[in-house]
Amino acid sequence: MAKLLLNKVVIFGVGLIGGSFALALKRAGAVRHVVGFGRSVANLRLALKRGVIDEIGTTLPRALRDADVVLLAMPVGRMQQVMKRIAPHLSAHTIVTDAGSTKQDVVTCARKNFSKQLKNFVPAHPIAGTEHSGVRAATADLFQNRDLIVTPLKETDKKALRRVQDTWLVCGARISEMTPRQHDEVFAAVSHLPHLLAYGLVYVIAGKPNAKELFKYAAGGFRDFTRIAGSSPEMWRDIALANRKILLKELVEYQKQLKRVAALLQKGDGKALERLFTRARNARQKWLLKN
Amino acid sequence: MAKLLLNKVVIFGVGLIGGSFALALKRAGAVRHVVGFGRSVANLRLALKRGVIDEIGTTLPRALRDADVVLLAMPVGRMQQVMKRIAPHLSAHTIVTDAGSTKQDVVTCARKNFSKQLKNFVPAHPIAGTEHSGVRAATADLFQNRDLIVTPLKETDKKALRRVQDTWLVCGARISEMTPRQHDEVFAAVSHLPHLLAYGLVYVIAGKPNAKELFKYAAGGFRDFTRIAGSSPEMWRDIALANRKILLKELVEYQKQLKRVAALLQKGDGKALERLFTRARNARQKWLLKN
Repeated sequence: MAKLLLNKVVIFGVGLIGGSFALALKRAGAVRHVVGFGRSVANLRLALKRGVIDEIGTTLPRALRDADVVLLAMPVGRMQQVMKRIAPHLSAHTIVTDAGSTKQDVVTCARKNFSKQLKNFVPAHPIAGTEHSGVRAATADLFQNRDLIVTPLKETDKKALRRVQDTWLVCGARISEMTPRQHDEVFAAVSHLPHLLAYGLVYVIAGKPNAKELFKYAAGGFRDFTRIAGSSPEMWRDIALANRKILLKELVEYQKQLKRVAALLQKGDGKALERLFTRARNARQKWLLKN
Repeated sequence: MAKLLLNKVVIFGVGLIGGSFALALKRAGAVRHVVGFGRSVANLRLALKRGVIDEIGTTLPRALRDADVVLLAMPVGRMQQVMKRIAPHLSAHTIVTDAGSTKQDVVTCARKNFSKQLKNFVPAHPIAGTEHSGVRAATADLFQNRDLIVTPLKETDKKALRRVQDTWLVCGARISEMTPRQHDEVFAAVSHLPHLLAYGLVYVIAGKPNAKELFKYAAGGFRDFTRIAGSSPEMWRDIALANRKILLKELVEYQKQLKRVAALLQKGDGKALERLFTRARNARQKWLLKN
């Protein structure tokens, strides 16, 4: 492909994802000017100081005029508000994409707000979150060899889709395509549910009378298991709500599994417990070999 | 303290823990001769080849004669059998300790088998497990700055206790003391339950019709969350059974918590979800600052 060069990129939410996107494009020499919007002035100032963005957005009409790509990288609960506000100012050639961790709700939101511009909207999700947030955590290589899922609509323009894919390829990502529903089902199982489980465990322990002693002896296994419970509560509140129907299904299935485990413990059925543990370990090892 | 020098150490179970114990003592110049026993000849041969042990044990009377310290580092389900077999051959001055992940059951076992030698038995647990097992994973610095919990009995001889503490200090560990029950309660919450939860999640995902796709998109958060599900199934079967009364209590409490989370999701109560996530994140961050 010809070398990608975007004149202007506008990022809403210059945090771990939005900031890393800007840094990756800049390192590749693929963007001339990056404008950032966000709720925290301190975070935007830091983004400017670190050279992640070139300008703190002031007014929407000015910032969006002639933008090539707009990235929506706020918590998904803020999509509705931001889409509504930017829609009147989008140029005919401006492509809008997002980095939301859920896709069905974002698509619903886009259908409501982007009537005219829907063909230029490309829903996407880079699988590169960590428990850190804010531009402080952003790095140019966050997306290197990480998955980027696009979930195009039937209305999505092929050129717009290709442009967004090219932009993420420049950032180092591997592109996959799914439907929004398929996306939300996959990530409910391998991401959203684990976050609920980890937050839940730390919450239970923190509420115990001997919490201090418990934390004192928590070691590396606990640290890794609960790492995702260090993630942004606002972001995960939004994800949980946005995907709650599918997430509840996953949670119910997991609760059934715990019931079975409890029954095996009660019976002292060591053989069945070992089979269960072995099957899980083997599945995980097989996965690691491929990744 | 005077420099520790043990003439002979006998290790039952030369795996991650037993092997690292030998390597740490050797690096410190604190042991002259290490004899290893175990079920896997291949593992013992590797231990010999790597210089972890100096001799593969052949007969118990010969190996145990004049041993200074015996370390029992097998899965806790094997304690009964090994204690029964070694008891008749223990010298009056030989100190026996263990590295079992549960303590009440090990103590019960010791009371049954070590009638004469009980004063020389020091129950202990180094908090240094990883998802790896076998002597291949052993390293001399596994115990550096890790906790070592001793749970002495009222019968435990003070000199024996001090000798075991000194031995672990040489390995780099920080020593704490608890009762066996207190130990089992603490580790049910921060170690045993998380293992069950992680095994359970991977098991559920591995059993789904789209498991392959799910694993394909599982990323770093999932890898960390499920790391402990890579642990030895036999070892964790034994731990789950040995501590099942307390572990079941923890599991039931956690199930109640998941019920509450499911209810919040059902109601779409974003405020309460965010409060829960925030409390968990803050508790975890506070813990990390201290560790």
